[in-house]
Amino acid sequence: MSLPSTSRLLLGPGPSPVSPRVLEALSAPQRSHLDPELVVLLDDIRARLQRVFRASPDSETLAISGTGSSGLEAVVANLTEPGRRALVIVTGYFGDRLAGVLTRYGATVDRLEGEWGRAIDPARVEQALTAKTYDLVGLVHAETSTGVCNPVPEIARLVRAHDALLIVDAVTSLGALPLEVEAWGIDACFSCSQKGLGAPSGLAPVVFSPRALARKVSCRSFYLDLDLLLDYWVRRKYHHTISAPLIYALAEALAEVEDEGLEARWARHRRVHETFVDAVAGLGLALLPPPAERLWSLNTVRVPAGADDAAVRRTLLEQDNIEIGAGLGPLAGQVFRIGLMGTGATTENVSRLVEALGRALNVSRA
Amino acid sequence: MSLPSTSRLLLGPGPSPVSPRVLEALSAPQRSHLDPELVVLLDDIRARLQRVFRASPDSETLAISGTGSSGLEAVVANLTEPGRRALVIVTGYFGDRLAGVLTRYGATVDRLEGEWGRAIDPARVEQALTAKTYDLVGLVHAETSTGVCNPVPEIARLVRAHDALLIVDAVTSLGALPLEVEAWGIDACFSCSQKGLGAPSGLAPVVFSPRALARKVSCRSFYLDLDLLLDYWVRRKYHHTISAPLIYALAEALAEVEDEGLEARWARHRRVHETFVDAVAGLGLALLPPPAERLWSLNTVRVPAGADDAAVRRTLLEQDNIEIGAGLGPLAGQVFRIGLMGTGATTENVSRLVEALGRALNVSRA
Repeated sequence: MSLPSTSRLLLGPGPSPVSPRVLEALSAPQRSHLDPELVVLLDDIRARLQRVFRASPDSETLAISGTGSSGLEAVVANLTEPGRRALVIVTGYFGDRLAGVLTRYGATVDRLEGEWGRAIDPARVEQALTAKTYDLVGLVHAETSTGVCNPVPEIARLVRAHDALLIVDAVTSLGALPLEVEAWGIDACFSCSQKGLGAPSGLAPVVFSPRALARKVSCRSFYLDLDLLLDYWVRRKYHHTISAPLIYALAEALAEVEDEGLEARWARHRRVHETFVDAVAGLGLALLPPPAERLWSLNTVRVPAGADDAAVRRTLLEQDNIEIGAGLGPLAGQVFRIGLMGTGATTENVSRLVEALGRALNVSRA
Repeated sequence: MSLPSTSRLLLGPGPSPVSPRVLEALSAPQRSHLDPELVVLLDDIRARLQRVFRASPDSETLAISGTGSSGLEAVVANLTEPGRRALVIVTGYFGDRLAGVLTRYGATVDRLEGEWGRAIDPARVEQALTAKTYDLVGLVHAETSTGVCNPVPEIARLVRAHDALLIVDAVTSLGALPLEVEAWGIDACFSCSQKGLGAPSGLAPVVFSPRALARKVSCRSFYLDLDLLLDYWVRRKYHHTISAPLIYALAEALAEVEDEGLEARWARHRRVHETFVDAVAGLGLALLPPPAERLWSLNTVRVPAGADDAAVRRTLLEQDNIEIGAGLGPLAGQVFRIGLMGTGATTENVSRLVEALGRALNVSRA
């Protein structure tokens, strides 16, 4: 058994590369979950997450001790009980997952199905909301399976007009592209540590708006119970033994985000994405979503005719030490998923990747 | 905002100290959750955990991506549904927690209450099992709130005779004192990474026996669904983005356990515990549980008359850079909780602590 000893360029759908500063933070001296030197970091993370989410000062923000999927489940577990009616917009794998978790927690779920590779049309959401009354609407901001950005602000206005709560999956958008929890009117939002924020995985930032807090249910989960989590994060009452190295890394990553400036970070992701799109066009490759619907953080590139998807990814990994992702679900074998996120979003990485991708495609076709 | 920069001696109820080797593992180069160099570590961890749990080769072992509490919830979530009848032996805070989580997942729970500070009498368990039929019995092996070791082998025989499943909380016993999942007949067991194993917190080892696997329910949780977790751990199908640094640290900590030898590690914990008991007797201090019922990993020492519990702990932390724990629940203010676990279980740490404790008690009384 041996641990990895050399660096690898992580350009898949996440985790994104971790900066030396964040990597070093992981091995800072351990403290317990109630140590005075640890709990000050909880305050720091709460304040910084509120700013990165652009959430209201009256919202509650913290990080769940689990991956982004635990953040999804925490939001659902605190807002859903049997009898709640939910509309979930499903335009990819993660919309489907959100619908599935809502169903597990007893919601009556209607799925508004959209095309994989396209954003949802807000007019269809309006129709659905007019036809029937819902307590909750679930929407994926950045659909990581298709590379598509859904129009959250437009949909949030509709949801508010119909007095439902809006749950948004921001796993692949937080820290990478514009997300405005308060201004847009998002009620509950969850993300992860290992994409736009640039920390390792293992913590899931979540935010609940005052409206969401007023409509909390009695949570069936103990581990994800928001009241018990706030008892710990705010009132220092033991609930679980939070992971010190993950807290150190997230605190450091959030400090890096603020050192760069959130809007500058969004602009960098956009610039790098545009550079990437131009560069792959030079290889004759096309992206799945139309230009106006593309994420800046995660690009789905169509596998060209005649190329062997798995062989290309293997060549990149073994010859060039670069990881990219495979298609999920119905897009398996159809697309490469290429993340340019967090500290990985640089034009140097674009050049290195596109050169290597060109070589790998030639080998695959040969 | 700044991270801790100096080491602190962690002798509370957990986390225990992390060795330099494990600390260094945390910052090994990142890999994604499906990277070939990461998934081999999953195989390695599964095999080593099976050995550390002393579980059958037909059992299923993995680590939940969360703390020990998520391990508790994972075991319950996969074995409980509304209508299942559970008997929970409550002799402290963590027995109470187990009963609470079973109730949240819909079980009809009867509590067999024991004295805080004493082990349960197996005869009382036999009475309860004879009086009524149960599907599940919940028991805490090492009750971290009281420092008591419950008689798991005797109770496991009774539970098996009555054809119920036995769930055991081994959070404070795994890697520190004898635990024999297969030989004793435990059906599901959960633990944590940050105590006897000596890794940081953030992963929760769990094991399910063949009998438990045969009686799994449809899991209400998505994040903790054993079938989906095995899809990832065994069949490499994406479920969640496991935390690479935590996997590195756990793999390294388990390698350390096997380098030492599991039985040698148990013997070391026993020896250090006995040294500690003698040393605090020299200060005129007594332990809460009677000698035959004491944990080797976690000692509850009665706060002597006239001493200010909080002041003593603060002095140790601020003057001596040593953390010990406070009493929980009805034992708040009544006991100090002193962990000598994992790499922290050394006679040198006993000397350093007992000297410092003697000084702090004198200051508190002055």
